[in-house]
Amino acid sequence: MTKVTAQMSVSLDGHYAGPRHTGEARDWLQSAEAAGFFRVTRWVIDAAAWRERQGFAGGERDVNSDIMAETFEAAGAYVMGRNMADGGEVPWGDEPPFRAPVFVVTHRPRETLVRKGGTSFTYVTDGIASAVEQARAVAGGKNVAVAGGGTLLRQVIQAGLLDELELHIVPTVLGRGMRLLDADLGAGLGLDLAEKEAIELTPTRVIHTPEVTHIRYTVNGRAALVLDDRGSGSGTDAFGTGTP
Amino acid sequence: MTKVTAQMSVSLDGHYAGPRHTGEARDWLQSAEAAGFFRVTRWVIDAAAWRERQGFAGGERDVNSDIMAETFEAAGAYVMGRNMADGGEVPWGDEPPFRAPVFVVTHRPRETLVRKGGTSFTYVTDGIASAVEQARAVAGGKNVAVAGGGTLLRQVIQAGLLDELELHIVPTVLGRGMRLLDADLGAGLGLDLAEKEAIELTPTRVIHTPEVTHIRYTVNGRAALVLDDRGSGSGTDAFGTGTP
Repeated sequence: MTKVTAQMSVSLDGHYAGPRHTGEARDWLQSAEAAGFFRVTRWVIDAAAWRERQGFAGGERDVNSDIMAETFEAAGAYVMGRNMADGGEVPWGDEPPFRAPVFVVTHRPRETLVRKGGTSFTYVTDGIASAVEQARAVAGGKNVAVAGGGTLLRQVIQAGLLDELELHIVPTVLGRGMRLLDADLGAGLGLDLAEKEAIELTPTRVIHTPEVTHIRYTVNGRAALVLDDRGSGSGTDAFGTGTP
Repeated sequence: MTKVTAQMSVSLDGHYAGPRHTGEARDWLQSAEAAGFFRVTRWVIDAAAWRERQGFAGGERDVNSDIMAETFEAAGAYVMGRNMADGGEVPWGDEPPFRAPVFVVTHRPRETLVRKGGTSFTYVTDGIASAVEQARAVAGGKNVAVAGGGTLLRQVIQAGLLDELELHIVPTVLGRGMRLLDADLGAGLGLDLAEKEAIELTPTRVIHTPEVTHIRYTVNGRAALVLDDRGSGSGTDAFGTGTP
């Protein structure tokens, strides 16, 4: 059965890149944003399964590479944000790594772009839910993978459309940068959580390597945070502290 | 050999409590800060090993409880922030849960407070490093555990004193609140990381339960983020995107 999935590499403190680069695009590689991004995706670039899809030689053939191969294999279609699609169009070249239909959420109509190896880019102008449905229709029973970026992924979570999230938690603390699961980004870009509301998940698989911890979650959905007073025989704070 | 350790329950997005409560202390239990705090510590309150130390009945006797028991057992002495010590003094009562010497980092001198069951509170006014050293001297070869709160823990990391960090990652997204590993809190309260600098760790143990994923890390220390261009045969971004 088709699930809507996403996977993202994040630092131990939840950043998928350093602080947003605001200079000229050509300086991006030298930016703190890129430095953080390449740190949390180092295991990806090192993975033979990822390199092969990019046409790069070499790489590690290990558990991390197996997980990357599995991730590619599980996706029957992709949903992608416009920034990522625009940025990738030239570098991905004639034969992009997806080998499946990609549905790009955008406001700008454009004819479908067909590439070699099974990849096509269809530009969807009527919203995220439509893009997910179009992807589902051609996924052939495989998953619809939200390829990114972070903004699109938050919107998919926000809309209640994500079934499964796999976080690749990299053992580095960036301290600042672009946070994946942020409720307060403003302008409709954050997770729109109410006070005392959370999104609950259930971890279903954990794979542990020295480079990265892979945790797969089923997304259960929004839930109110209720005070559980089981620890509090007296009705007061069982931890004995208001300033944890 | 004595290690300086810390453990903290955090949400999937790195918060150990909801947004800081700024009203009157007696309203704390009703605050969003408390709602987040009790969500990420629910597994603790449910653990029989924790409840027993608090004098509470019941609780789950499971892997999570075993980890809590192990955590208590491994600590030969504690270092604690002043807010936590002050907040706990009354609720912890005559026989606090620590059963070991506690060294409280504070600016206010005070005589050592000796409680039943092996717990004492010694007030250290000459800084964190001194508190850690005093704790180490009496830990009897067990660990020095940084008991909290978050501000003290960041200061211990900042000072390069932490050997091991165990995060209990709870499968909930709070979206906002008090973040443990934050470089930009101001007033010397954050991790003082330079641009393109990170704190690197190595995961050494992962234990997975439906309620919480326990990841233990060795803290390797600060490192510069260098651009790894192994994925980039052409010298350009291997991901093909400046806006991940």
